[in-house]
Amino acid sequence: MLSFDEYREIINSHLTDFIPATDPEAAVLRESMEYSLMVGGKRLRPVLLLAACDFAGGDIDQALPYACCLEYIHTYSLIHDDLPAMDNDDLRRGKPTNHKVYGEDIAVLAGDGLLNTAAEVMTGEVIRHSDDHQAMINHAKAAHEIMSRAGIRGMIGGQTADVKGEYMEATAELVRFIELHKTADLLTAPVRAGLMLAGADDEMLDAFTSYAQAVGVAFQVLDDILDFEGDEKLIGKKVGKDQDLGKCSYVCVHGLDAAKEELHRLTGEARKAVSGYGESASFFTELASKLEIRKY
Amino acid sequence: MLSFDEYREIINSHLTDFIPATDPEAAVLRESMEYSLMVGGKRLRPVLLLAACDFAGGDIDQALPYACCLEYIHTYSLIHDDLPAMDNDDLRRGKPTNHKVYGEDIAVLAGDGLLNTAAEVMTGEVIRHSDDHQAMINHAKAAHEIMSRAGIRGMIGGQTADVKGEYMEATAELVRFIELHKTADLLTAPVRAGLMLAGADDEMLDAFTSYAQAVGVAFQVLDDILDFEGDEKLIGKKVGKDQDLGKCSYVCVHGLDAAKEELHRLTGEARKAVSGYGESASFFTELASKLEIRKY
Repeated sequence: MLSFDEYREIINSHLTDFIPATDPEAAVLRESMEYSLMVGGKRLRPVLLLAACDFAGGDIDQALPYACCLEYIHTYSLIHDDLPAMDNDDLRRGKPTNHKVYGEDIAVLAGDGLLNTAAEVMTGEVIRHSDDHQAMINHAKAAHEIMSRAGIRGMIGGQTADVKGEYMEATAELVRFIELHKTADLLTAPVRAGLMLAGADDEMLDAFTSYAQAVGVAFQVLDDILDFEGDEKLIGKKVGKDQDLGKCSYVCVHGLDAAKEELHRLTGEARKAVSGYGESASFFTELASKLEIRKY
Repeated sequence: MLSFDEYREIINSHLTDFIPATDPEAAVLRESMEYSLMVGGKRLRPVLLLAACDFAGGDIDQALPYACCLEYIHTYSLIHDDLPAMDNDDLRRGKPTNHKVYGEDIAVLAGDGLLNTAAEVMTGEVIRHSDDHQAMINHAKAAHEIMSRAGIRGMIGGQTADVKGEYMEATAELVRFIELHKTADLLTAPVRAGLMLAGADDEMLDAFTSYAQAVGVAFQVLDDILDFEGDEKLIGKKVGKDQDLGKCSYVCVHGLDAAKEELHRLTGEARKAVSGYGESASFFTELASKLEIRKY
């Protein structure tokens, strides 16, 4: 296995390789898609996909297009989320948001373009492996896993609850629903898809699904904490927005101390989920620990 | 083969069947997706997919999910196109547009949800046919065909040129680019995907691709004509918008008379493309003739 930074370097070097060539008439569309892709980011989701595939003995070259597609989906969700009609953010990762640079019309289309490209690339990969029936099944399962967790039962469902939560009573159940679907689903998808591409067995899939869900919920709890007490300069966008928008977050329902306890509990749960794999799973246990103390 | 109305009845009876079950927290998302799906429409794209599959001897039950996915994609593109940041339409098919009923935030998410659902359903269908290698290949090809023509080289690229065309000189080349990609690609995709599901040969694919592209460009030319002289009540939305927005249309570049000639020429070209199949292709030749004289 490689280090997080080594996997990230692979992603950063190839992130736009899989986007189909576009006509000059649509040049601005491609430019705006690439702008938001290359503006930065942890690359946590694509790294998880490469690492999971690698861990289960798969070929990370075959996993690379799927890893990039995960980042296309994550990036489209940020572009649409930043729109004036949604969270109305001017800054993302310290840079102007897509619609501030390209206008709202192109930002809508750039988001659509990134989501569509993910599906286009992955279905193309399924066909590309049609000389090996089992590989083809593994690829189709990975593509379906990603589209399902990104969809209306997954991330888009979570986004809907997040948007509508502004007008509803914030309950512990609603907060958990948002954490699980808005955030954890798109961290679970790469882990499961990476394992599926490598043909991993159900036992490994189950253990790493538990790991990824715990890491994913912890990730959102910490985002909620950082929105209360984070450093705007480090985060690269305005903090305190959850309160301003009346968002339903872990902190506002349970308080800051309980949120920190929950973050610590979930991180332990994540490490425990893969403890049966011992030292060989240290990439994942160490990542969970690092994510617990991230500042942005 | 069935009649257009019979195919359409199958679509209308099953259109929402393939949308995955949603959680109560995301009920409004599903409601808004179904609102725009069921507000009406010619169902031209899904009917073309069923008819093409049927024509080539395929199983229309297997084609039905793909036909519905085409309508999900078409509908998402209308929801996003109607947004204030895009064409800013209040009415579509005589009813309030999605964002007028559900708000802009949910309209963005409903569009995303429909596009994602299409990819989710189609990749699921590929897996569902994994006991038959050739069927699996046919399904993957159909899914990829649809996602490609809907994407940044297809419909989204055409939409981009349409939006940006408002600020550019309207040339004959730009108008043809918009017609081909904004409109014809999403009429070509169902014909090709339907044939692919049935395992049609390249000769048939080529002939029907020419047919569909001619019908598709003709469809947009007539839309441009109707925007000049159509009946607002029949069309169900405001006419004259192309001029108001400075859109780049066939009529504004070539004039109304030339547009009518071009419509007639393209319809003949479409019929000629499948003339080698004689009477057996009458569904398609008659459809081209009917589309030439549509009033909405």
